[in-house]
Amino acid sequence: MQLRHVIESQQFTVPLLRELFARTQQMERVVARGGTLDYQSKIVATLFYQPSTRTRFSFEAAAYRLGGRVLSTEQARFFSSDVAGEQLEDTIRIVAGVSDAIVLRHDQEGGARRAALVSSVPVINAGDGQSGQHPTQALLDLYTIHRERRGLEGLSIALIGELDRGRTARSLAYLLSKFERVRIFFVSPPEVQMQPDILRHLDEHGVWYSLESDLSKVLGEVDVVYQTRIRPERLADGNVSRYALDAALLGKLKKDAVILHPLPRTVEIDPAVDADPRARYFEQAKNGLFVRMALLSLVWDGPS
Amino acid sequence: MQLRHVIESQQFTVPLLRELFARTQQMERVVARGGTLDYQSKIVATLFYQPSTRTRFSFEAAAYRLGGRVLSTEQARFFSSDVAGEQLEDTIRIVAGVSDAIVLRHDQEGGARRAALVSSVPVINAGDGQSGQHPTQALLDLYTIHRERRGLEGLSIALIGELDRGRTARSLAYLLSKFERVRIFFVSPPEVQMQPDILRHLDEHGVWYSLESDLSKVLGEVDVVYQTRIRPERLADGNVSRYALDAALLGKLKKDAVILHPLPRTVEIDPAVDADPRARYFEQAKNGLFVRMALLSLVWDGPS
Amino acid sequence: MQLRHVIESQQFTVPLLRELFARTQQMERVVARGGTLDYQSKIVATLFYQPSTRTRFSFEAAAYRLGGRVLSTEQARFFSSDVAGEQLEDTIRIVAGVSDAIVLRHDQEGGARRAALVSSVPVINAGDGQSGQHPTQALLDLYTIHRERRGLEGLSIALIGELDRGRTARSLAYLLSKFERVRIFFVSPPEVQMQPDILRHLDEHGVWYSLESDLSKVLGEVDVVYQTRIRPERLADGNVSRYALDAALLGKLKKDAVILHPLPRTVEIDPAVDADPRARYFEQAKNGLFVRMALLSLVWDGPS
Repeated sequence: MQLRHVIESQQFTVPLLRELFARTQQMERVVARGGTLDYQSKIVATLFYQPSTRTRFSFEAAAYRLGGRVLSTEQARFFSSDVAGEQLEDTIRIVAGVSDAIVLRHDQEGGARRAALVSSVPVINAGDGQSGQHPTQALLDLYTIHRERRGLEGLSIALIGELDRGRTARSLAYLLSKFERVRIFFVSPPEVQMQPDILRHLDEHGVWYSLESDLSKVLGEVDVVYQTRIRPERLADGNVSRYALDAALLGKLKKDAVILHPLPRTVEIDPAVDADPRARYFEQAKNGLFVRMALLSLVWDGPS
Repeated sequence: MQLRHVIESQQFTVPLLRELFARTQQMERVVARGGTLDYQSKIVATLFYQPSTRTRFSFEAAAYRLGGRVLSTEQARFFSSDVAGEQLEDTIRIVAGVSDAIVLRHDQEGGARRAALVSSVPVINAGDGQSGQHPTQALLDLYTIHRERRGLEGLSIALIGELDRGRTARSLAYLLSKFERVRIFFVSPPEVQMQPDILRHLDEHGVWYSLESDLSKVLGEVDVVYQTRIRPERLADGNVSRYALDAALLGKLKKDAVILHPLPRTVEIDPAVDADPRARYFEQAKNGLFVRMALLSLVWDGPS
Repeated sequence: MQLRHVIESQQFTVPLLRELFARTQQMERVVARGGTLDYQSKIVATLFYQPSTRTRFSFEAAAYRLGGRVLSTEQARFFSSDVAGEQLEDTIRIVAGVSDAIVLRHDQEGGARRAALVSSVPVINAGDGQSGQHPTQALLDLYTIHRERRGLEGLSIALIGELDRGRTARSLAYLLSKFERVRIFFVSPPEVQMQPDILRHLDEHGVWYSLESDLSKVLGEVDVVYQTRIRPERLADGNVSRYALDAALLGKLKKDAVILHPLPRTVEIDPAVDADPRARYFEQAKNGLFVRMALLSLVWDGPS
């Protein structure tokens, strides 16, 4: 199965997701052994036009654990050339000449797609624009659910937060729709609920979902709690605490539920929750390393 | 032949240039095979007091392809110490203590020379000041012409743009003057033409040149078109399009001509030109990798 | 002897210091041979919330010389997430998931200790806050004196500068107090002399010291001159030159004395002093590499 560039969640079919998951588990085993892989001659360029230390480190560590090396930018926009009319396309062509893969975080939607059109090496989208794609986050979210629950079919999942602008929640809802008998609860104040395009997509594919505004009502129903950012200024009453998970609410959760968050968090999950064995958000972050190792190896290995 | 520091184009004699070109071709073959070289214990520090992602990546990739490692600064000026009176010389002495070569981009002319005077490891000038030197760019330009045309003797070359302030055009004219029967057309609006010091140097060495202001008249005469930046605010009439290369002008060019540009470009070369086989500016950028590998290996290997 | 995190100078007992010094000397021999060590699978994350190119390069070169790899931030504060309420603790947990050690420079006192409490990998404090700790600087200072003078017992040492705010002088005084018959001269204008907490500590441990304000009077008495920063605006008369070391003062120094400075310097040591064989501040900076290699290997190797 060939994977050339990683631009958006939509390009991942169920067979490709299964291959990715299998390879991700291999990577986890390699790292657990303290091993590296046979990609010593590979150079990954992380070209970040917006800073994101966490995402950048995860990709760079993935390159290192594969045996490769890293060309790094903390903030390419700020530090770019003094030439005003300079084009992303020319930069990509030049960086492709000195690297074996480009991990691009761009500040404009569609940046990754533009880069892929001219790049002689694989491009991996590490986020493009506020409402653009961030496919590796969605893939690591999905992988974490798959790993923690040993499969995705038949799961009930609550997606919580500012869902209208929630890039990760949107992508995850899209990917979940590919699996049988998944049930999704969108838990959000009505003024920032999930947008109609995603709901329409779920309708078309016969996926069960429910729009909710009361978190405590939903918690006992689900296998997965997926928390995301919520800001007071986006809510009519400014009261975000209604959507926060704290120790008191943990009693309502199923014994084998898992609690996830793409991080960084603010008030959405109280630190007292961290000690609960169902809190898996730091493992989720760590899974990003293995998923990114798997993606880099897939784009380099060519058809399998 | 010994090469300790790389500070300015003028230090390169024809025999040293030939050795550099031979070694650069070796490096190109090594990279094509996916190999690395035997410099595993070497650490290159890229100390950039002005940001330049492209140049920095080229040097860092060169260090990696040689087998080495990299200490990197995206913007050393901005992030330097809070100690106001701190001297470049002390920084160089300290960085030399933890590295095997320093690649320096400094914001003041003469910075690289000052660094070389106190450094215990080789210093490579990656640009110092607006009107200072950037010798590795000049060397990769010359190498690209040599490679594309299988030699430099007897070539006719058009250097186009704001030549009075054109660091790369100045250095290239200087290096070209070392080769037999080279003819140089300086194509520029009179108000920003090449400065008298370079013309005097060419006169003294008996190099043929011509000062031109009409690009279309020259294009059919030359083997190499070397485009550089041109900004409206520097021209009396603000009309830079007269000096831009577009698809319509390609018909005037010789069939075996090569089109170069140090990049980044703005309006000087229309993107429609990119598809023409004579457009070699992205190969030129890539050659920077091989030239820099060769230079690092030369300064490390000592006398040969 | 187990060393898990490196947070403050106070955690180093004399036996641990001796083990550190022995290992540091081993590291110096390995580097002199051009060798690397067997830590190929190790990744060091340098997480700097304040820029410090020198300290960062020293740690990163240490990781490389050990055989490892580096995840690097030039300025994590500036480039951190857009999420205002983000916690250091969560960042540490995430970075610990993709690295084998975290070198942290934080802008708040106590940052390193907070990080160590939640990190699953060793944390090394590379400076936290203006008046916080910077233990690896103190350790390399102490190691340099030990190395240059073949032992610490019975030495007389002048600590010179703005001692009230001098993080390095304070830590060094603390560490020196652990060794027999050490004599300390604090040389400083009275208005910025060493603070009572350190003097009390020396009194309690029976360490001889003297408060001085005349540099020339002390120079002939000491085996080690440890210069630190002094700024005109902190002095009643603004005259810092009284505390500067220049060529004229060198005649007063013992023949086998050593001159140290944590660097960067401004006026405290005249460049004319650099050529004197007793000037050892650049060797001192270089020793930082070996001390940091030793510390990383100690935290990774576990109990010995």
